[in-house]
Amino acid sequence: MTASIESLLMRHEARRLQPLPLPEPVPAESLPTPALVVDRPAMERNLKRMADHLTSHRTGLRAHAKMHKCPVVAHRQLELGAIGICCAKVSEAEVMRAAGIEQILITSPVSSPDKMARVAQLAAQSADVRIVVDDLTMAQQLDAAAREAGTTVRVLVDLDPRMGRTGIARGEPALNLVRGIDQCPNLHFTGLQQYAGHLMHIADAGERRRKALETAAAGIETRDLIIADGHPVDIFTGGGTGTFDIDSEVPEITDIQAGSYVFMDEEYAAIGQGNRPRFEFFEPALFVLVSAISQPKRGMITVDGGFKSFASDSVAPVSRDLPDVRFRFGGDEHGILLLGEEAPEIHLGDRLWMVAPHCDPTINLHDWICPVEADGLVHELWPVSARGCSW
Amino acid sequence: MTASIESLLMRHEARRLQPLPLPEPVPAESLPTPALVVDRPAMERNLKRMADHLTSHRTGLRAHAKMHKCPVVAHRQLELGAIGICCAKVSEAEVMRAAGIEQILITSPVSSPDKMARVAQLAAQSADVRIVVDDLTMAQQLDAAAREAGTTVRVLVDLDPRMGRTGIARGEPALNLVRGIDQCPNLHFTGLQQYAGHLMHIADAGERRRKALETAAAGIETRDLIIADGHPVDIFTGGGTGTFDIDSEVPEITDIQAGSYVFMDEEYAAIGQGNRPRFEFFEPALFVLVSAISQPKRGMITVDGGFKSFASDSVAPVSRDLPDVRFRFGGDEHGILLLGEEAPEIHLGDRLWMVAPHCDPTINLHDWICPVEADGLVHELWPVSARGCSW
Repeated sequence: MTASIESLLMRHEARRLQPLPLPEPVPAESLPTPALVVDRPAMERNLKRMADHLTSHRTGLRAHAKMHKCPVVAHRQLELGAIGICCAKVSEAEVMRAAGIEQILITSPVSSPDKMARVAQLAAQSADVRIVVDDLTMAQQLDAAAREAGTTVRVLVDLDPRMGRTGIARGEPALNLVRGIDQCPNLHFTGLQQYAGHLMHIADAGERRRKALETAAAGIETRDLIIADGHPVDIFTGGGTGTFDIDSEVPEITDIQAGSYVFMDEEYAAIGQGNRPRFEFFEPALFVLVSAISQPKRGMITVDGGFKSFASDSVAPVSRDLPDVRFRFGGDEHGILLLGEEAPEIHLGDRLWMVAPHCDPTINLHDWICPVEADGLVHELWPVSARGCSW
Repeated sequence: MTASIESLLMRHEARRLQPLPLPEPVPAESLPTPALVVDRPAMERNLKRMADHLTSHRTGLRAHAKMHKCPVVAHRQLELGAIGICCAKVSEAEVMRAAGIEQILITSPVSSPDKMARVAQLAAQSADVRIVVDDLTMAQQLDAAAREAGTTVRVLVDLDPRMGRTGIARGEPALNLVRGIDQCPNLHFTGLQQYAGHLMHIADAGERRRKALETAAAGIETRDLIIADGHPVDIFTGGGTGTFDIDSEVPEITDIQAGSYVFMDEEYAAIGQGNRPRFEFFEPALFVLVSAISQPKRGMITVDGGFKSFASDSVAPVSRDLPDVRFRFGGDEHGILLLGEEAPEIHLGDRLWMVAPHCDPTINLHDWICPVEADGLVHELWPVSARGCSW
């Protein structure tokens, strides 16, 4: 019964997994707005920069697909050498699995029988599906679900880097959980996850570095405790876009879970890097194209994108091209551009490129990514196939 | 060419417009979380309260479908006497039109040739499709698009109630725009819109009332100026959930554009009503059901819904049932419940009902509304058919 609800919710027949070619290429500026647009050459440079950096540091990339929710992007990451992808949710993993991806780590624990049954089904389909656990009772329930499905689920223990979101405390609590998992015949302990999301956006690069290294060291201490107790730790995964160049210096970290680096966003760009005020190793590649639709007052102009086109949890969108223009949300469907003295004239009907404020929840608002190639044209549309898959 | 991109973006074949019956009813608590759940009896009471109130005040309801984006709810509003629906976007109107709805007002101006062509196509399909305009040049371009499509587009002039989002200034500027529209052979002026969104959430009920009546009076002055100049004003539309009982006392207002009243949300409930601290004429009927998934620290517990399940533009979600529990966003996929001394014990796997913080952008995150009937069971799923239709 439960399985059938989930299949109804998923509507497999309605989810497109492949790019949709356009009958003929169109200029980005002619897309109906608001449109989610990717600068494809910038995206490719970002992909290659991360791949090259990690290759030279002998660190794997387990790219976080929660950011893009798009199998087209995930396949490109794998082509460039990623060892696998991460998903935040079971439904997201189901979409990526349906798109042919085998190496999937679900990075958040689950706690209900329906989710555990689905994880077991995924594990039965691919030996390279893994999920984190952070509680023994939940691990035992997952073991029962795996037994029910006649399979083994590979698990990682999620360590809490003192962020207080998910994960078990490092040291003895984590070791005891590993010992408990060892008693579960249908679970297979394969490593540790320590994701320090609270460090990713620390503006002071020195402080970010110090805290990331401290956090890594504390996690490695737990890893060594577990190895000394006789449990091989094949995977020690963690780290993201904000600490990629720090975590990759730590030899014990096998792979990092970066997501945002592909497209970047204003929230990340603003954190700075080293002694530079902007984090520019990766380029902004994700934009929302909006149109000016109304001008009730001089000094401001209204565009057709608001809370339903831009994530509203962090910074405001910023203009890609225009000086002295600030964006203020004007409700669900509108944004108000505040035009300073240096701002150019904007006319009704003009299209404006806004840098995405926070990439993950911005992409999740849209059905399609429109990639603009080097020729300035959109040749195909990429479906955000796992959009809305938060369950 | 443009039309074909839009048809590709829309993917008509993938948009379900009707309820999806479940093979057998299921308890709400067994839905995969996060789930968007509607208390159906509470929704019905809200629908009837608004219908009864407006009927007794001889005011029409032009229900704003941007809130729910769901044809099932729109049809129920029409069954209960709504004179039509509003849409914020052309794509939203296209979905509602495809679901068989004729009476549609698009409440935001458009400024690009592609949108104008689509509006003209909608108008050619139904004489009851209308759109607002607030600029003469744009009106003339819409006139050309209507001529091209061999049809007439009915328009309303959008008045800016000094909110500074869309609309033309009241008085002479509005009159001149009406005169200009009269020169457009393929446009037909049918009335005025004045939507004072900035008044809807004023917490002081006396101030809200005073400002709403002042705003209405200023709009009516412009209406009278236009009528005196020889242009019939059949429609004078405006007002929303926050001022429904004020605007309905103004005989010149033909209909109000309320949306949120159907489901309500915490943002509205907190504004108070009359001398009561909470706005309770309409009941909270929209919830996100989440599961407790991790507890890294005593005094808090992590649930499986964050920025991708709850709107993050206004207040935080609140617990429907539990005392002394506060919600803090824990990122895209997580929420942290802070448990006070009076809070009950919560276990991993427990399901929790959270009141939607802001209904419109919360619904837009989900693919399905799960209505719970009086028997506590979900019998069918309602598609959020116009989800993502922000273009």
